[in-house]
Amino acid sequence: MDKNKFSKPLPIDSINVTDNFWRNMMELVRNNVIPYQWEALNDRIEGAEPSYCMQNFKIAANMMEGEFKGFVFQDSDFAKWIEAVGFSLMWHKDENLEKTADEAIDIVCAAQQPDGYLDTYYIINGLDKRWTNLKDNHELYCLGHLIEGAVAYYQGTGKDKLLNATIKYVDYVDTIFGSEENKKHGYPGHEIIEMALIKLYKITDNEKYLKLAKYFIDERGRSPLYFEEEGLKHENKFWWEDSYFKYQYYQAGKPVREQHVAEGHAVRAVYLYSGMADVAKETNDDELLEACKRLWDNMTRKQMYITGGIGSSQYGEAFTYDYDLPNDTIYAETCASIGLVFFARRMLEITPKSEYADVMEKALYNGIISGMSLDGTKFFYVNPLEVVPEASLKDHLRAHVKPERQKWFGCACCPPNIARLLSSIGSYAYSLKENTIFMHLYMGGEISTNLSNNDIIFNVETEYPWNESINISLNMKEETNFELSLRIPEWCRKHTIKVNNQEVEYKVVDGYAYIARIWENDDKINIYFEMPVEIMTSNPNVRENVGKVAIMRGPIVYCLEEEDNGADLHRVYVSNNPEFTYKYEKDLLGGVVTIEGNGKFIKNQECDEYKLYKSKAEIKFEDKKFKWIPYYSWANRNPGEMLVWVKTAQI
Amino acid sequence: MDKNKFSKPLPIDSINVTDNFWRNMMELVRNNVIPYQWEALNDRIEGAEPSYCMQNFKIAANMMEGEFKGFVFQDSDFAKWIEAVGFSLMWHKDENLEKTADEAIDIVCAAQQPDGYLDTYYIINGLDKRWTNLKDNHELYCLGHLIEGAVAYYQGTGKDKLLNATIKYVDYVDTIFGSEENKKHGYPGHEIIEMALIKLYKITDNEKYLKLAKYFIDERGRSPLYFEEEGLKHENKFWWEDSYFKYQYYQAGKPVREQHVAEGHAVRAVYLYSGMADVAKETNDDELLEACKRLWDNMTRKQMYITGGIGSSQYGEAFTYDYDLPNDTIYAETCASIGLVFFARRMLEITPKSEYADVMEKALYNGIISGMSLDGTKFFYVNPLEVVPEASLKDHLRAHVKPERQKWFGCACCPPNIARLLSSIGSYAYSLKENTIFMHLYMGGEISTNLSNNDIIFNVETEYPWNESINISLNMKEETNFELSLRIPEWCRKHTIKVNNQEVEYKVVDGYAYIARIWENDDKINIYFEMPVEIMTSNPNVRENVGKVAIMRGPIVYCLEEEDNGADLHRVYVSNNPEFTYKYEKDLLGGVVTIEGNGKFIKNQECDEYKLYKSKAEIKFEDKKFKWIPYYSWANRNPGEMLVWVKTAQI
Repeated sequence: MDKNKFSKPLPIDSINVTDNFWRNMMELVRNNVIPYQWEALNDRIEGAEPSYCMQNFKIAANMMEGEFKGFVFQDSDFAKWIEAVGFSLMWHKDENLEKTADEAIDIVCAAQQPDGYLDTYYIINGLDKRWTNLKDNHELYCLGHLIEGAVAYYQGTGKDKLLNATIKYVDYVDTIFGSEENKKHGYPGHEIIEMALIKLYKITDNEKYLKLAKYFIDERGRSPLYFEEEGLKHENKFWWEDSYFKYQYYQAGKPVREQHVAEGHAVRAVYLYSGMADVAKETNDDELLEACKRLWDNMTRKQMYITGGIGSSQYGEAFTYDYDLPNDTIYAETCASIGLVFFARRMLEITPKSEYADVMEKALYNGIISGMSLDGTKFFYVNPLEVVPEASLKDHLRAHVKPERQKWFGCACCPPNIARLLSSIGSYAYSLKENTIFMHLYMGGEISTNLSNNDIIFNVETEYPWNESINISLNMKEETNFELSLRIPEWCRKHTIKVNNQEVEYKVVDGYAYIARIWENDDKINIYFEMPVEIMTSNPNVRENVGKVAIMRGPIVYCLEEEDNGADLHRVYVSNNPEFTYKYEKDLLGGVVTIEGNGKFIKNQECDEYKLYKSKAEIKFEDKKFKWIPYYSWANRNPGEMLVWVKTAQI
Repeated sequence: MDKNKFSKPLPIDSINVTDNFWRNMMELVRNNVIPYQWEALNDRIEGAEPSYCMQNFKIAANMMEGEFKGFVFQDSDFAKWIEAVGFSLMWHKDENLEKTADEAIDIVCAAQQPDGYLDTYYIINGLDKRWTNLKDNHELYCLGHLIEGAVAYYQGTGKDKLLNATIKYVDYVDTIFGSEENKKHGYPGHEIIEMALIKLYKITDNEKYLKLAKYFIDERGRSPLYFEEEGLKHENKFWWEDSYFKYQYYQAGKPVREQHVAEGHAVRAVYLYSGMADVAKETNDDELLEACKRLWDNMTRKQMYITGGIGSSQYGEAFTYDYDLPNDTIYAETCASIGLVFFARRMLEITPKSEYADVMEKALYNGIISGMSLDGTKFFYVNPLEVVPEASLKDHLRAHVKPERQKWFGCACCPPNIARLLSSIGSYAYSLKENTIFMHLYMGGEISTNLSNNDIIFNVETEYPWNESINISLNMKEETNFELSLRIPEWCRKHTIKVNNQEVEYKVVDGYAYIARIWENDDKINIYFEMPVEIMTSNPNVRENVGKVAIMRGPIVYCLEEEDNGADLHRVYVSNNPEFTYKYEKDLLGGVVTIEGNGKFIKNQECDEYKLYKSKAEIKFEDKKFKWIPYYSWANRNPGEMLVWVKTAQI
């Protein structure tokens, strides 16, 4: 590994996303989610569970009287919000929002203790108890989010009050934890601080933070197990005693370099893996990178839904075992898919292989944005691939699978996580490595960058993911020698790339088309990715999907909804050789391409009423057309059934 | 309804079951289960959770010091045991067993209070607290079992010590509960006492017990709700506040006559329905019988597994909703199927329709005896139709689905329930109504009865359920005019009935062939029920089974086991037009008919290792023969996968 060979994401303020698809969601986040979230942090949402977040900071700052309320990790609500605010201000200045944020930062900083400590749960409940339950009490998790929020707000505004307070806190933490004998050998129960510290390292250039991140990663799971000793000393309950995964719930059952299979709490897992990739990259640690690759392979080849969902079990919000991907009792938390994108992006920076970007795209266009309603006001934690409202109501195993998005959550991780992701979405699309610019994702807009010492503007016009064309025009003062690297999506089996209407030569390496040439002002690049409707099958080891197919077009996974197709979707069969048509419906679900295809539906028979089981029964079908909508857009009309994996007679 | 038109079961001591199938199980119960159970009641089984049952009785009787231990319903362990003992002594005298039982009865009776009360939980913990939590504390449930045990032991031995003690207790209870203003308007949280009181009524002829049973049934679910008021008064926790079924967990959400759908805890439900059928019959209550019929129809037409399993959800051990019959996350408790047999038998006594006996047979030959290992030492609570050992280990939703039977349970309901059923199995096969003798089930053996004032012996020779022939010869002193009524099983599509080698005329009413004639000594009846291998399909409303088939032969449901067919049973497809052969294997699994049939198996492909989802994928099959074994006999070899509903290309 050569550290200088890694690509770096383009800064957010050099990317102006303007297409209908992402820009719309960014604006939803800016106009709805961020303001709503602020109201939520201040417990002003009627009918929603209170957050208590700002109240806790005020109490900790002696600005009001009261007890700590809410979850132990409630501080992170503010951190996630300020991060989204920071990102949002990078592409849309907003004085009022900045003023609100500055006032919030004043409150938060007022709670900071002289030694730098800043966690309201222990400030309010007694500082003598801090660091007594790293396993479950989320101090380092909250700090991790705080770092990410402080860095983003600093980058978005140039204001360093929160950043400096955070650095003070981190510097204090650095005196507490480490491999030195006089320090605690602890690490967080919920990871995130590892990758957050790398962000801090990058903007401060202070290697102390890299070292601390590396320490947290290397110490994790080592024998004797810190969590076990801490638990004995402080009589902490071990919640997962009876579970299969035990300390692997926290990815702490063994040293991270010895972990081969994605296990335990899915969000924790991908946050850890992201930090591992960061540290591997920054320290040229090939062994650690190998561990990342193994975990990536296991997760994406054996434990990932077609939507990019991960963590199939509600119990522990966790991974279960290879190929166990139930569609109905699923968990597939929105945050876990977001964490998967974090991990994918870091792997992609290390090695430009399209498989990383493919997974990133899969999650972004499907299992993540399914987490937010089209009007940006309601959210899914759980992203099912099969929903029967009666089952959600009457079957305990599916009680967590909601047929409708909810307004807000007491444990508000998913909505703010979507907010911080979407408000920085552009930064996932592009990266730079020396004189190569990578396009990992295709979104319409303008990118300004510098290649071979020339300023260049890329104008990307596209109706991706609905349309097969991406047209890029270049704007520069003088001709420039650089390499354009375009991801050929995994789903695309036929593509053309033209420069100034001529097919060009290029090499394809690891799924990227590399076009190196001397580019001129006003050069046009036309990319065509053929986007037929595709019938997808699952690996036959996935029990739930044998004999079933899913429908995709481009990166978009489709589903059937009761609204379009009636109830009893389990009776639907896709035809053996189905004919599909598709069209863009601009007034439907915010503008989507829908698909229509022929199939069969099991007819009702008279005997159905009084017979459960029959011998030599003939099953009668009627021909029927079915309408498919993008999976992410489901549950935006009347509540009803939804289905992704549909039976087929073609086996 | 005309009360005199009902059929009555033959007494157990007039039936000598001798066939290999049932006699073997009866002997297992007698030789293994009953002695083992006694050791368990006395906490002498190493490695098993203690029962504390006899210890509690001794403490309550001041024979030793100590606290009450175990579940509140632990007394019923004794009651179920003594019931099985009573039945067993009817067909196999055993002085030692009787002596042990008498000694146990002495201990139990010594615990009885002067007023008749006899529940060790409250005797030990304070009589002032009795009757304060009818909803959950099982006093009336324990009494119900005690009545059933006392009646059986009295019938089996003629000894009335336990019966008299029980009557004293019931008489006391009768002063506490009833519709009169000065009585508590309570009823049991766990039903059984209703049907138990009818047994007591029948042997005592005291209408008081019938009246009390009727009261418990009629009061149930009436407004204002007793459980709610009791809960408020005594601050009892309501465990099902957040459930869908709420008080219907106890079948107490509304009056029983207004209940249309089987809901809540499945064992409680079928015990209640059995009591309802008893009371409807004994009081000529057509309205109540209609309620029974509705509940029967709902349960058997919409909520029953092909094995006769009911109660699909572990949560609440309960029914969920119509057609929700998951095979893998299933509950289908052994006891619930036993309760279903109780209910079926009572419905059958009221109306001789084969559908009742068909369900009884289905449950007996499949979902009930699957609960016990072939050596009578290990037991299933849960009877899955699909098992993957890794899932039981790593998927929390299937943690209750065990791939191996367990030795004993702390909450020991299923093993003793199997014991009391099997040791009285003969009584489910035959009933009498005036001069008609019904054969509901076919088991080899000798039945002695009296028809038209003549003593008649029926010698039944059969290798049912393996063989298609049942041969009956009659033994009587003088010719007798009576009617023989033979159930034509639902699964049988071709049958012949011959008397003395001549085809005879008979009418078939509601699935029974009625042969009325003057019978002579040594008359021979030959019954032939064609038993081809049948391919069964499910009602298409059962989501889990669309596109799948199950294999039956006669009343036996078959399954695939990993032991015979390798792992990954979800990759198996039954061929479109499968050819099946079957053979009796006397040395396999205690002697079973196995089935072999052709099918297809999804081959491994190289890309499986690194691809989860593929477009335009061709699935490759290999032809393979599969071996099917009777479902009940699964999990008697090496632990592994098991599957009942198998995919088919034929849809």
